[in-house]
Amino acid sequence: MPRWKPDAAERLQAAALELFDEQGFESTTVAEIAQRAGLTQRTFFNHFTDKREVLFILSSEIQRAVVGEIAACDDAVPPLDAVVRALEVVADGLFEERRAVATRRHAVIAANPELQERELGKNAALTDAIAAELHARGCDPDTAFLAAGTAVLAQQAAFQRWTRPGETRTLRHLLSEAVRSLGTIVSEDPVTS
Amino acid sequence: MPRWKPDAAERLQAAALELFDEQGFESTTVAEIAQRAGLTQRTFFNHFTDKREVLFILSSEIQRAVVGEIAACDDAVPPLDAVVRALEVVADGLFEERRAVATRRHAVIAANPELQERELGKNAALTDAIAAELHARGCDPDTAFLAAGTAVLAQQAAFQRWTRPGETRTLRHLLSEAVRSLGTIVSEDPVTS
Repeated sequence: MPRWKPDAAERLQAAALELFDEQGFESTTVAEIAQRAGLTQRTFFNHFTDKREVLFILSSEIQRAVVGEIAACDDAVPPLDAVVRALEVVADGLFEERRAVATRRHAVIAANPELQERELGKNAALTDAIAAELHARGCDPDTAFLAAGTAVLAQQAAFQRWTRPGETRTLRHLLSEAVRSLGTIVSEDPVTS
Repeated sequence: MPRWKPDAAERLQAAALELFDEQGFESTTVAEIAQRAGLTQRTFFNHFTDKREVLFILSSEIQRAVVGEIAACDDAVPPLDAVVRALEVVADGLFEERRAVATRRHAVIAANPELQERELGKNAALTDAIAAELHARGCDPDTAFLAAGTAVLAQQAAFQRWTRPGETRTLRHLLSEAVRSLGTIVSEDPVTS
């Protein structure tokens, strides 16, 4: 018995990844994606508002999980630390077992400006949601924005490494490393040190 | 004699800002923008590829100036410091005298998802260009990406404050303040401190 059965959204994403890789994002239609997944166009549009969204099936789950972890974190924990801890939990729980798919997805997005634009929007929405949660914990809005932005930047850097060919370290490990690099970069600046 | 005569691009941007503010981005046509500016649609498309670009007339000039300043900076200057110095020069030279227009522009962009998306794309392009220049100076790619991203994040935070009603401090001042806040945020993190 299979341990895990992909649901419609994951099947559609897998089909889209194959097709975008074979024939490009532009030349692939929603009808082709649905057909390759053995589903109907109607099912596609029940799950996604447009062709780009099919590669962002985890975005809202990630955002909910990160915000939930920050909310559950002890108030005494400083803002950046609270966000990094949340991203670490999400790295283990949502990303680590999906490395192969994430790597293919990353390559397809990198090759297409429209998909990159959507990804930038998702990162900005995640940053805003994190900043709002930090603000709810009592952070002033400017600090909340900077702490959220710094954490998402570290996450992006870690994600880039994690999906690089030959890289075997976990996303959690690479995230800590990116945060440490940020510490070095910022402490070398005469204004901050 | 007027000290400064707006060129076609600036006239088109001023007209677009008025119209987007009066009737919204969606319901404004390129023909209306050109007419309001006393110019032709053809002139509009000589300057801009689409309706969104009219609000980004300085983007390529900013990018060129920032990259040029980094390239001219002494190699011994650490990466984040080199970028912040460049952003300070550009803040004084390109932004400070345009505060009123920048504030109206910022409000119009904030009210429109399509314009926000384009702005995210411009910030990402600026980050990539800065990272490429840091890499050319001998920075490893991961450090270059993180230093560029950190500086652009500080610039965004400073810009948000600078365009806030009642704020009178210069963009240069607010940029230094944002970089200092980043230093505090990062040094509070147990991984980096």
